[in-house]
Amino acid sequence: MTTELNNRAGLSPSQARELFRAGTVVPTSGFSHGFAQANLLSLPKEDAFDFLLFAQRNPKPCPLLGVLEPGQVSSELLNGGDIRTDIPAYRLFRDGELVEEATDATAWWREDMVSFLIGCSFTFEAALLDNGVPVAHIAQERNVPMYRTTIQTNPAGRFAGPLVVSMRPIPAGQVADAVRITSRYPAVHGAPVHVGDPAAIGIEDLGAPDFGESVAIAEGEIPVFWACGVTPQAVVMDSRPTLAISHSPGHMLVTDARDLAYQVP
Amino acid sequence: MTTELNNRAGLSPSQARELFRAGTVVPTSGFSHGFAQANLLSLPKEDAFDFLLFAQRNPKPCPLLGVLEPGQVSSELLNGGDIRTDIPAYRLFRDGELVEEATDATAWWREDMVSFLIGCSFTFEAALLDNGVPVAHIAQERNVPMYRTTIQTNPAGRFAGPLVVSMRPIPAGQVADAVRITSRYPAVHGAPVHVGDPAAIGIEDLGAPDFGESVAIAEGEIPVFWACGVTPQAVVMDSRPTLAISHSPGHMLVTDARDLAYQVP
Repeated sequence: MTTELNNRAGLSPSQARELFRAGTVVPTSGFSHGFAQANLLSLPKEDAFDFLLFAQRNPKPCPLLGVLEPGQVSSELLNGGDIRTDIPAYRLFRDGELVEEATDATAWWREDMVSFLIGCSFTFEAALLDNGVPVAHIAQERNVPMYRTTIQTNPAGRFAGPLVVSMRPIPAGQVADAVRITSRYPAVHGAPVHVGDPAAIGIEDLGAPDFGESVAIAEGEIPVFWACGVTPQAVVMDSRPTLAISHSPGHMLVTDARDLAYQVP
Repeated sequence: MTTELNNRAGLSPSQARELFRAGTVVPTSGFSHGFAQANLLSLPKEDAFDFLLFAQRNPKPCPLLGVLEPGQVSSELLNGGDIRTDIPAYRLFRDGELVEEATDATAWWREDMVSFLIGCSFTFEAALLDNGVPVAHIAQERNVPMYRTTIQTNPAGRFAGPLVVSMRPIPAGQVADAVRITSRYPAVHGAPVHVGDPAAIGIEDLGAPDFGESVAIAEGEIPVFWACGVTPQAVVMDSRPTLAISHSPGHMLVTDARDLAYQVP
């Protein structure tokens, strides 16, 4: 296993999923270079229309890469895999409360569960690096810092709640490049939602993120904020559906879809 | 009214909708320059999750600009308007059969209807013209030719059926430009699905379209095919939901959304 973790970038998506299915629990950043990773949210069928509509109305935080119909546990995004076992770690929410974490969600499963696979910003981070734009949390070997904001999502049916954003400090002279490059990836959060002034979106202290880890911001860098795939978990906490299953933050589904499939010219 | 029709490009979207609400029945091509037009499909709530999923799985023919929740008849896309009256002409389908056309859909309405507003290619046609790429059916003053193909959409729940495409003949030296320009508008059908050889996608005679009108193809032009917003009507005919209301082809909803809101860089 140590060998496999040392070669994480070179693992195929199915090899990575097999490792996680066998019980390895690590964040998935850096696994299977060139392949897209996804956030998971599974809900009972009774709440699925409302959440699908919520995602349609909030494409920046909730860009859907795929939706599995009631009871379905695999799709072409995880060819031959099982959505209940192939992610390193899962979270169980009952009435909006986080009640349990586990490496296997099979015991929580119901036949009427609909699973939403939501794009993640790992894809555009590779494009930023390829274009010479530094990504601080990768350089500093930390999880990306994420914050609840005072920006509200567009409600749909029973779902409403705050937008969660990720933050990357970008050198002032490269902010325009970061906007241009990430705009080309609308399926993985796309262009930033806010540039500079954290207080304007309700973030009091960049050093104290609500999720992930803080990063050092160098002289001459501007904080740039992108919509984040943790938003559905914040919305579940606010909207309190009877049952919801998600991945644990940073522990994503490694899919068989190529990063480049989500680039527009 | 003649004066208003002579100035169709200069009408605001709300002025255009008022004209249609008052009973004017004309195709909407050329109305309200700079504003997006939309296809309509309204379905009972019981079929709404399946169709929302169908649209998510078929973003090229069914790019959603908005979804109105059960019973809702207006949204920010038609500020103050009514989805049942503000389109020039409507179609009623029962069990997949087209049973009636009318200028007002109020009599067919049910409180559980969910309305889907789907992007239309009018938006990228303006961008083609602005970039010097000719659009034959505009130059020839005809409706765009549309064809059923042998390409199948991705099924979702009860919905399945053939992809319908629109065709524009493009000078061979400008095909690459047409691809590049339309790729920037993924919310209004985006890049072509097929270039050249109609027989390869099951089109036997370009001169006999299944919807719209045929156009003359000049020497040196290549037929280029884009996914079309008439696809949902073909899918309704195949999938036979108990009730469906759509616009009449070519008679679209003129929305308050600007064309440029759907451009990616």
